[in-house]
Amino acid sequence: MTITITAFERSPDGGKGLARDTRVRWALEEVGQAYAVRLVSFRAMKEAAHLALHPFGQIPTYEEGDLALFETGAIVLHIAERHAGLLPDGANARARGITWMFAALNTVEPPILELANARLLEGDKPWSKERMPLVEDRVRNRLKQLSARLGDADWLDGAFSAGDLMMVSVLLRLRSSGILDGYPNLSAYVARGEARPAYRRAFAAQLALYTGKPPTG
Amino acid sequence: MTITITAFERSPDGGKGLARDTRVRWALEEVGQAYAVRLVSFRAMKEAAHLALHPFGQIPTYEEGDLALFETGAIVLHIAERHAGLLPDGANARARGITWMFAALNTVEPPILELANARLLEGDKPWSKERMPLVEDRVRNRLKQLSARLGDADWLDGAFSAGDLMMVSVLLRLRSSGILDGYPNLSAYVARGEARPAYRRAFAAQLALYTGKPPTG
Repeated sequence: MTITITAFERSPDGGKGLARDTRVRWALEEVGQAYAVRLVSFRAMKEAAHLALHPFGQIPTYEEGDLALFETGAIVLHIAERHAGLLPDGANARARGITWMFAALNTVEPPILELANARLLEGDKPWSKERMPLVEDRVRNRLKQLSARLGDADWLDGAFSAGDLMMVSVLLRLRSSGILDGYPNLSAYVARGEARPAYRRAFAAQLALYTGKPPTG
Repeated sequence: MTITITAFERSPDGGKGLARDTRVRWALEEVGQAYAVRLVSFRAMKEAAHLALHPFGQIPTYEEGDLALFETGAIVLHIAERHAGLLPDGANARARGITWMFAALNTVEPPILELANARLLEGDKPWSKERMPLVEDRVRNRLKQLSARLGDADWLDGAFSAGDLMMVSVLLRLRSSGILDGYPNLSAYVARGEARPAYRRAFAAQLALYTGKPPTG
């Protein structure tokens, strides 16, 4: 059955790979599943046809036969459960890999989203300059804890898993802020993720929408 | 095997059931699994023994034999996967139930956490009064979309699932703000969740830590 995901017709990041379809593309590349992409405009994302697929009017969505999913974490987990390569075999190790997915999305990403809001939505407000250090400290608090746990390991729990895929994707949102530079082991962890051939194919595929050139993989 | 979870020795909410152990207690009650609770002080949460269990120094954790998990979403999913009662039987319906878990934690909860931060951590800042409406609007934007999707259904996708458990738990954090009152179908949805016998047992169990009275169920 064909897998079809949705992506921004014009991503707000202009092809930096930070839109959430990159996370799903990466997962599909890791497990070697081909997929089709349907592009959605900002206007169409808020219309009934797309809202039927995604109640919060976002991308990505995932369609495969009569299954329709939204929410990146759920899509990546679905892919990881049905194909080898993104979760370990043992039941306990598998549960721990899934734990890191939730940790990325519910513990590490919320302060990063708050920082993005502070910059994009409140950057012109009178309180922006004074407030920014508080918001950055909330991010640093999490990074410090994550850095301590990762130590000098390559990945968060044994071999690369969907938990790492999600954590690297979340941390990538911090690159432009420079905050990640304060945590060399996390910077190296993110670089390891980006160096994976599957990530590079996913990145190239989303970038090709902007350059007009087909991905060369 | 005994299941042991951790909870705050003194929850910051004083027994309102908003600490995240209530979500795990609720899941265990829905599937009829007995559990033990180990209480952790604020100081002990930041010490090495607890950080080995939970790298972000929070509660709850989950221990069962040689399995140790953290992160509420992962724990509830683990319980839902191993016992009947929290996810439907069909593969597609099951994937959709999991989707609502992620939607609760990664799409609906982040703006609610931002609102909590605005109140608890920035309530005394000079920008608080002017900024609050912006933060509340981000919450309302999500509630409006969720309300439109729920419509007049009892639960988000068919029968009650772990997705509803998580969404109700997330929305409960808004009760004191009054924001939920603007969405009668969401208020009724939350009330349906709270009326479930399993929720009532979970709520009573966490409250008993404060009243000193054993839960009466």
